[in-house]
Amino acid sequence: MFSTGRGGKPLEEPRRISVGMVGAGIMAKAHSIAMAAMPMLFWPPPALLERKLLADVGLKSAEEASLRYGYSAFTDRWQDIIEDEAIEAVHIVTPPDSHAEISIAAAKAGKHILCEKPLARNPEEALSMLKAAEEAGVVHQVAFNYRKLPAVELAKRYIADGAIGRVLRFKGSFLCGGYDPNMPFRWEYRKAVAGGGTLTNLGSHVIDLARYLAGEITEVNGALRTYVHERPVFADNVEYFREKVDVDDETSFAMRFDTGATGLIEATNSAWGRSTFITFEVYGTEGSLAFNYNNREQLQVCFAKDPAERRGFQTIDLGPQHPYGHGLWQSPQIGVGFSELKSIEAYDFYRAIRDNSAAIPSFFDGYRTACVCAAVMRSAKTMSWESTT
Amino acid sequence: MFSTGRGGKPLEEPRRISVGMVGAGIMAKAHSIAMAAMPMLFWPPPALLERKLLADVGLKSAEEASLRYGYSAFTDRWQDIIEDEAIEAVHIVTPPDSHAEISIAAAKAGKHILCEKPLARNPEEALSMLKAAEEAGVVHQVAFNYRKLPAVELAKRYIADGAIGRVLRFKGSFLCGGYDPNMPFRWEYRKAVAGGGTLTNLGSHVIDLARYLAGEITEVNGALRTYVHERPVFADNVEYFREKVDVDDETSFAMRFDTGATGLIEATNSAWGRSTFITFEVYGTEGSLAFNYNNREQLQVCFAKDPAERRGFQTIDLGPQHPYGHGLWQSPQIGVGFSELKSIEAYDFYRAIRDNSAAIPSFFDGYRTACVCAAVMRSAKTMSWESTT
Amino acid sequence: MFSTGRGGKPLEEPRRISVGMVGAGIMAKAHSIAMAAMPMLFWPPPALLERKLLADVGLKSAEEASLRYGYSAFTDRWQDIIEDEAIEAVHIVTPPDSHAEISIAAAKAGKHILCEKPLARNPEEALSMLKAAEEAGVVHQVAFNYRKLPAVELAKRYIADGAIGRVLRFKGSFLCGGYDPNMPFRWEYRKAVAGGGTLTNLGSHVIDLARYLAGEITEVNGALRTYVHERPVFADNVEYFREKVDVDDETSFAMRFDTGATGLIEATNSAWGRSTFITFEVYGTEGSLAFNYNNREQLQVCFAKDPAERRGFQTIDLGPQHPYGHGLWQSPQIGVGFSELKSIEAYDFYRAIRDNSAAIPSFFDGYRTACVCAAVMRSAKTMSWESTT
Amino acid sequence: MFSTGRGGKPLEEPRRISVGMVGAGIMAKAHSIAMAAMPMLFWPPPALLERKLLADVGLKSAEEASLRYGYSAFTDRWQDIIEDEAIEAVHIVTPPDSHAEISIAAAKAGKHILCEKPLARNPEEALSMLKAAEEAGVVHQVAFNYRKLPAVELAKRYIADGAIGRVLRFKGSFLCGGYDPNMPFRWEYRKAVAGGGTLTNLGSHVIDLARYLAGEITEVNGALRTYVHERPVFADNVEYFREKVDVDDETSFAMRFDTGATGLIEATNSAWGRSTFITFEVYGTEGSLAFNYNNREQLQVCFAKDPAERRGFQTIDLGPQHPYGHGLWQSPQIGVGFSELKSIEAYDFYRAIRDNSAAIPSFFDGYRTACVCAAVMRSAKTMSWESTT
Repeated sequence: MFSTGRGGKPLEEPRRISVGMVGAGIMAKAHSIAMAAMPMLFWPPPALLERKLLADVGLKSAEEASLRYGYSAFTDRWQDIIEDEAIEAVHIVTPPDSHAEISIAAAKAGKHILCEKPLARNPEEALSMLKAAEEAGVVHQVAFNYRKLPAVELAKRYIADGAIGRVLRFKGSFLCGGYDPNMPFRWEYRKAVAGGGTLTNLGSHVIDLARYLAGEITEVNGALRTYVHERPVFADNVEYFREKVDVDDETSFAMRFDTGATGLIEATNSAWGRSTFITFEVYGTEGSLAFNYNNREQLQVCFAKDPAERRGFQTIDLGPQHPYGHGLWQSPQIGVGFSELKSIEAYDFYRAIRDNSAAIPSFFDGYRTACVCAAVMRSAKTMSWESTT
Repeated sequence: MFSTGRGGKPLEEPRRISVGMVGAGIMAKAHSIAMAAMPMLFWPPPALLERKLLADVGLKSAEEASLRYGYSAFTDRWQDIIEDEAIEAVHIVTPPDSHAEISIAAAKAGKHILCEKPLARNPEEALSMLKAAEEAGVVHQVAFNYRKLPAVELAKRYIADGAIGRVLRFKGSFLCGGYDPNMPFRWEYRKAVAGGGTLTNLGSHVIDLARYLAGEITEVNGALRTYVHERPVFADNVEYFREKVDVDDETSFAMRFDTGATGLIEATNSAWGRSTFITFEVYGTEGSLAFNYNNREQLQVCFAKDPAERRGFQTIDLGPQHPYGHGLWQSPQIGVGFSELKSIEAYDFYRAIRDNSAAIPSFFDGYRTACVCAAVMRSAKTMSWESTT
Repeated sequence: MFSTGRGGKPLEEPRRISVGMVGAGIMAKAHSIAMAAMPMLFWPPPALLERKLLADVGLKSAEEASLRYGYSAFTDRWQDIIEDEAIEAVHIVTPPDSHAEISIAAAKAGKHILCEKPLARNPEEALSMLKAAEEAGVVHQVAFNYRKLPAVELAKRYIADGAIGRVLRFKGSFLCGGYDPNMPFRWEYRKAVAGGGTLTNLGSHVIDLARYLAGEITEVNGALRTYVHERPVFADNVEYFREKVDVDDETSFAMRFDTGATGLIEATNSAWGRSTFITFEVYGTEGSLAFNYNNREQLQVCFAKDPAERRGFQTIDLGPQHPYGHGLWQSPQIGVGFSELKSIEAYDFYRAIRDNSAAIPSFFDGYRTACVCAAVMRSAKTMSWESTT
Repeated sequence: MFSTGRGGKPLEEPRRISVGMVGAGIMAKAHSIAMAAMPMLFWPPPALLERKLLADVGLKSAEEASLRYGYSAFTDRWQDIIEDEAIEAVHIVTPPDSHAEISIAAAKAGKHILCEKPLARNPEEALSMLKAAEEAGVVHQVAFNYRKLPAVELAKRYIADGAIGRVLRFKGSFLCGGYDPNMPFRWEYRKAVAGGGTLTNLGSHVIDLARYLAGEITEVNGALRTYVHERPVFADNVEYFREKVDVDDETSFAMRFDTGATGLIEATNSAWGRSTFITFEVYGTEGSLAFNYNNREQLQVCFAKDPAERRGFQTIDLGPQHPYGHGLWQSPQIGVGFSELKSIEAYDFYRAIRDNSAAIPSFFDGYRTACVCAAVMRSAKTMSWESTT
């Protein structure tokens, strides 16, 4: 009935990669949209992705998610993904307590791994994952997705080019929520599952940004606070009991970088009026950078070399001229949302697979961030500076 | 090898709809991402969409786009889509000069239509499209996507609920670009293709917002300006010649609504420093609303009933509690980008198909917006108020 | 008991000027603070000012105001000021209906005049004031104080230097208040006293900024609206009756400049959530400027010549390097308030007196602004473009 | 020639107070404007102020300042002020190293004292000043002027009224400047004169705000950094030599309040793009407050009790309804600058004198802030938490 490419040079088809997804929650949604959208945004893509198999411990959940997110099949055994030789890459979007086991199995089976953050519950687990991935020679990436923002990449380039001179100070935050003792208990409030609270869940993103932009964090001095010590468990909208919370609702810590720079990071779930309020400011000898995820398509830059009467923060609207801009929309501010952000993340992951190169942020970055978190936890107990190594 | 839904109540599969796409440009990208992402975001979805056939006048373009955007087949004849009885819905993303012909044919073939904006080059074309769609009884929607923003929908509800009283005034703008005589000629600069310049391309979005929020526009008084009268045509980076521009680079016009409210709209491609700067402010007897697409996940509201010492614009971060929030991300400000916006648009289109109800904005809205644009063009000549009817 | 300048070169004392103030309202407060603060800010000052005589029609008001604002004497006859030969300069801060009579008398008596805005109720009155001042050879200045902002002066210099190329468009606004039918009647609501409503009271400031920055306004096309047609008159907190309002609550108009540029101005007292919301944006072929009085110590600038990947609005914090900065505070953002603004205004007025030069904005500017207002009023009736000449 | 209060009830004249000023620098300017403007703003005023005598170690400076700032006489001996029995109040605006001696002498002479901040170089000096003032029974106030902002006072009231519940966290900053090794040496860089660097000069303001809003600071854990260790001394624009800097360019510290709240404060002179960037955020169990001095006429408030779909930061424009609003301008955002701020400070000081009541912030507040600074300095050495007592 219709034409199918008569004549002319045949179109070179991109490589096709079969992917397995472990987990069926909100991040399965984000990763699956990214898999579908990535080649539509970035063309030619590193690969066309076939969503082959989705695993979740709840079989009904797996079934529904496979239909919703467009997978050819589903299972309640993640091992099915590992055992499927046709699957080349695995996305792990389960809670942190299962990351190590699944990831190490995937690595041993030679599968490339994109694992949600935090990489693991503690540095030991993270290190075991890193080692397994390195030994297997697979591409490994941890989903600190905010590092993939065009604005962050532009900031990185300015810093790398010396545009703001030597970095003196990095400040970052991840604020959200609002104090609410009636917020139901979730796995995020259990250390044995999550590894930590706002520090590891929110703060880890900012730690990753800090390390990317300002260098390795060598020492920290901070505190953790838990505001709500028990949270309700509901069934059929009736509160059945209160479950103990053993993780932090808020953290802040000072830090020192290997470069001599210093910094501060804060994370909280108890800041009324703040939503996904991820910010950083970098002050250097020759200029400054500032970012707020609430305005994620803008980077603020200030350069000391500008004449004094024309010096000040400049708002750069990130667009086609900027990092990843060729794949996004035709003008700045048309809209980079979470779909686009996760698509960039997938783009980088599959580029690394295609190029047989290292992905960033890698499991090493996930490990180092876990080390920083662990040092903050120690510091909160010793009430003094702790080394991250 | 793996489980497939043993036992329990079988999952009810959503309806599946086959879709044809006419056009292979940037909007094909946006619509195709939306088709893939819509059911992942909004579950259960009104339908699961099968991207069946993509048509573009350039066969190579069609082939590449079909691969990129995940269509089963491609063609250089849009009529193939019309003739394919399995295709229930058509997305038209070509330049405006082809909208009427394709759309009327699609309607006659009984296909539901989501057509990019502006709906047509003039009110006459738009009216013929509207009539054809109505006669055929198909669902028809015009892609004034900004109306689909959660912030816009929230604004609509506030106004409908009387939260800001009687609307006194609506101001809106769409600013972008920067004066640049070296920007190459494109079809957007040719009236015979585009129907107009910034008025119909950018301003039409704001007209649609104005009509949605403040009522029907009955009279306008405005002007059009062309800053660059010829633009270069390049081949292999060499400027071959200059092509005449016969559309406006900037417009602004005053307007009156059927409610007695007044307003102002501006659109320009010559505003250095502005990017997709779509704004509106609505001032009422009991309060105000303000929006800027650069902060598209926020709506500013001010209510006169607040005590005087605690009155002022409040920033609402749009999230799960707000319109469309159940399908978007788990917290405000995680990120509504163009992908999410077009997914909402598709969600509403396919909901109307599922429910056999009218879509909004419909071809009637596209027609009315064309009438307003035509009245502005007349006003620019007569230099006085012109009726939009 | 203490030293008084023993030895060394004697300090050269600034000239001393005796000043009369006509009016005892809120602007008497502002002008009197300015007279006191001006030499403290700007040193050496053009003159040290002696607040000699304050006149108000209410003798008790005059007495209290003279004590409050530091005048040596008071009177209920403004003619006393005119007749006092020792008084060199007069500040007129009464309602507009008395400006012409007082001002012309002052000019004939050879006194320099700083008159509050709007200069007069209509162009005829303003012209008579201008002629009288010119014939008398006195310095004459109209208190469009916002022109004196460092940010405005910096904008002027950028435009004059060609930094944003040819001006294409000027937009300005003065928004405040909120629709409130219970706001008591005041003289501002009576045309015979005020000359107009928001147009002449608020809009005139923006017209002055437009003329200063973008050139002479030659034609306008606009409208006036009155939202509240009667307002209560209270006595002892009891509403006695309703007084008719015969001026506008809101205005907006398009305009054309002698340079070919176009523009828009809006003014309203019915914008809930806006307070002294004076804004302007100037778009040129080579860049843009933007200002908001709510951030009065900042100017936003965008230059097309910046490389595309580093182009965007830059926030300049106005400080010691900028216009008037030598007299203000030691760093940007320490605080320019209304006191400082009026001090700058006085500084320029007394500099003109000292230098025997023309002040700006002069009565000519006050006259031209009155012409623009009158043209808008005509346009509101003819519903078409009206010349301002 | 003119009337002088014939008939009627005679106007009650405010009390008149003779004032001495010690110091002739930038703060003499600010305080003197405030003395002149205070009664013009706040009427009836607590007192009319007679600027009687200004002292500065440089006699020429004193002479010029007395003329500029409107003092009847001048001297190079501050003791002349102490010895003048007609002088009731003294403003001390010299560098910190002279505050104690002058202040104690003034107290012993029974004079009320408004002393610039920081109150002293260390807690011991501050305590001796506090004791002397208390023993003498004079009014004593330290010029932490930012506490006097209407927005700060409104924040205080919200917190006191429980509007944001229990305070969980206070964050504050004072950022300015930019790293600049060529900035000339000034007394601010010498610890023996200034008592400290950014901590005592800038940070002390934020400490005062923190104590006012969130309670007493009991423990701190922080660091100090000096970025530039030598600064040039110029004579006739020639660099003569480099002087050692022995104070900090930047500080940040964590803190604990007696209420159980925690917090963070930062101060720096090395933040390119920031100007007088004084901010605070207060997060409570029931809401949040946020302030930025760059928008000093606004307070951001967020209340948890608002319905979830209408919760968010609200911008309150400070105006006549708010603290001190009766004395400021007739509408919000007309302009509170440094002149107005210092006038409020003077208003409160002279109200305390009139009412024979305690001023705030008092020397006790100055002392406690010095204690916090000293604890931060100790913490910077011990690298652990230090008590402020």
